Amino acid sequence: MTHIDTSAFMACPVTEIAKLDGSMENIKTRMELLIMRIQGEMCRALEDADGGKFVVEKWSRSEGGGGITCVMQDSTVFEKAGVNVSVVSGVLPPAAAQQMRVRHKELSEGNLHFFAAGISSVLHPRNPNVPTLHFNYRYFEVDDSSTGKKHWWFGGGTDLTPYILVEEDVVYFHTQLKLACDRHGNDFYSKYKKWCDEYFFITHRGEARGVGGIFFDDLDTPNHDEIFKFVTSCAESVKPSYIPIVLKNKDLDYSDADRQWQLLRRGRYVEFNLIYDRGTKFGLFTPDARIESILMSLPLIARWEYCHKPSPGSKEAKIMEVFVNPRDWI
Amino acid sequence: MTHIDTSAFMACPVTEIAKLDGSMENIKTRMELLIMRIQGEMCRALEDADGGKFVVEKWSRSEGGGGITCVMQDSTVFEKAGVNVSVVSGVLPPAAAQQMRVRHKELSEGNLHFFAAGISSVLHPRNPNVPTLHFNYRYFEVDDSSTGKKHWWFGGGTDLTPYILVEEDVVYFHTQLKLACDRHGNDFYSKYKKWCDEYFFITHRGEARGVGGIFFDDLDTPNHDEIFKFVTSCAESVKPSYIPIVLKNKDLDYSDADRQWQLLRRGRYVEFNLIYDRGTKFGLFTPDARIESILMSLPLIARWEYCHKPSPGSKEAKIMEVFVNPRDWI
Repeated sequence: MTHIDTSAFMACPVTEIAKLDGSMENIKTRMELLIMRIQGEMCRALEDADGGKFVVEKWSRSEGGGGITCVMQDSTVFEKAGVNVSVVSGVLPPAAAQQMRVRHKELSEGNLHFFAAGISSVLHPRNPNVPTLHFNYRYFEVDDSSTGKKHWWFGGGTDLTPYILVEEDVVYFHTQLKLACDRHGNDFYSKYKKWCDEYFFITHRGEARGVGGIFFDDLDTPNHDEIFKFVTSCAESVKPSYIPIVLKNKDLDYSDADRQWQLLRRGRYVEFNLIYDRGTKFGLFTPDARIESILMSLPLIARWEYCHKPSPGSKEAKIMEVFVNPRDWI
Repeated sequence: MTHIDTSAFMACPVTEIAKLDGSMENIKTRMELLIMRIQGEMCRALEDADGGKFVVEKWSRSEGGGGITCVMQDSTVFEKAGVNVSVVSGVLPPAAAQQMRVRHKELSEGNLHFFAAGISSVLHPRNPNVPTLHFNYRYFEVDDSSTGKKHWWFGGGTDLTPYILVEEDVVYFHTQLKLACDRHGNDFYSKYKKWCDEYFFITHRGEARGVGGIFFDDLDTPNHDEIFKFVTSCAESVKPSYIPIVLKNKDLDYSDADRQWQLLRRGRYVEFNLIYDRGTKFGLFTPDARIESILMSLPLIARWEYCHKPSPGSKEAKIMEVFVNPRDWI
């Protein structure tokens, strides 16, 4: 008899149940079960808020592993909502390896075998009063065949992109993330809040993509167990940090001008994801990757107006001020 | 008295008239006057086809040079049309220098002074029966302070992105480009047609962005004069290769399905420009660059549908076949 209850998952895990069951202490197994659980919990909560249903697709990679992509598109509350789990392994393709060596100088020029398990989600609501949410939590292992060394790290984050600034919502969101961080380290929130502001920055525009949240990468101390607990808290904080903001704002009225502004900011979201985002680039450089799951993060519609400038004193100008000068919310 | 007639230009050239006038044989001057003339001719022809007017903005860079950006947005025939001239110089920023060294191994790690003059244009019509056009012709000089050597080259191309396949239009377009090429070399068209198919390829999708045209880069033989004449022919062929296609198709009826498909293909256009395009990346990595002029190439609206697949036998499937397997049109 298995110890694994899959009833709340969106699909069977990527790895065979028997294999997971026989390795319950293994960090790979723990991570896969965590992301499967979080995917199930988020999708159910989003379905409750929306009234729609996620389409679930299970896919596999010829080289090893696969994933479960859940998408709800053109629905009532969500214009495009994706919650994607992937558990993949293989040899790092040259372009992806080179990108990884920029941050991981310890990796040799030889063959790099990798394992990656992560959950990645972008939720684009239709109503401009409801912010877009992104979260991603991942565990990475690289076996360096030249040196015989194994490297591993965790990364992730949760960040919010509102179109109309409601300060109390942003404070609420950051407070939830801080609660999760505080359980694991006094300085975690301030450290990872700052990292988030730096990471989700559209350099060529000189502006943040949203109001931030938390972000970290390459975490490998003190040990698997401690970091896994921290990552678990972060992943569990996504639902309470976001769903109440959706429910509070989803039925508010909005104008066509609000909608056009939202589409314009979605254009900025596209710029960030295609030009800067590590996960997206890593995915696009990986042959045999499932492109539709990677680019699921792009909005249904985006807009680029030449030289758009919000008029002084407008709602748009107010939120731009926060994007250009990221604020401390707590 | 000056020899330069600026009456057909969209604005005064970037370089002072007196300076241009005193260096009429200089390749920099010749290139600047060529791109100013082509900008004027294209903008007038597009205004005639559309009925609207280009907004002309002259901008300058603190480090040296500037440009003239002409944009017609949300107009009758064109949803977004940009024809941009820039004449800039300075020291290559590290990120741009590194990108350039990938192709130009001869460039040292020292300071690189550069000069660049080019015309760049993307024309996005509203009606899905009218293809999007891109063209770009540029001259580059790099002074390598470590070696004391001066490097120079020309690059450019013209390519077409239809949404609905009208074979006779594509053949007409390629024929015009071939005529321009044939005046300068027997194998120019076939060589640069192939290069275009390879360059404007969305690798992660395994498909071309459109039906190609011509593309070349790093041309530096046999000499300035010969290549300048070739580039002049190419730039002069843009108007006759495209305007008749606009006039022929601009008043055709289209369905909402045609429009949605066009927006989806525009999403692919955004992917190409932000992920692969050299000119865009070079611009984004150059501090103090005019971002709005660089990203003028992005469409007014783009769409990303998860796992969109044209139904077999449809118009969409027919044109996809051409994107996946680029064809010889002549």
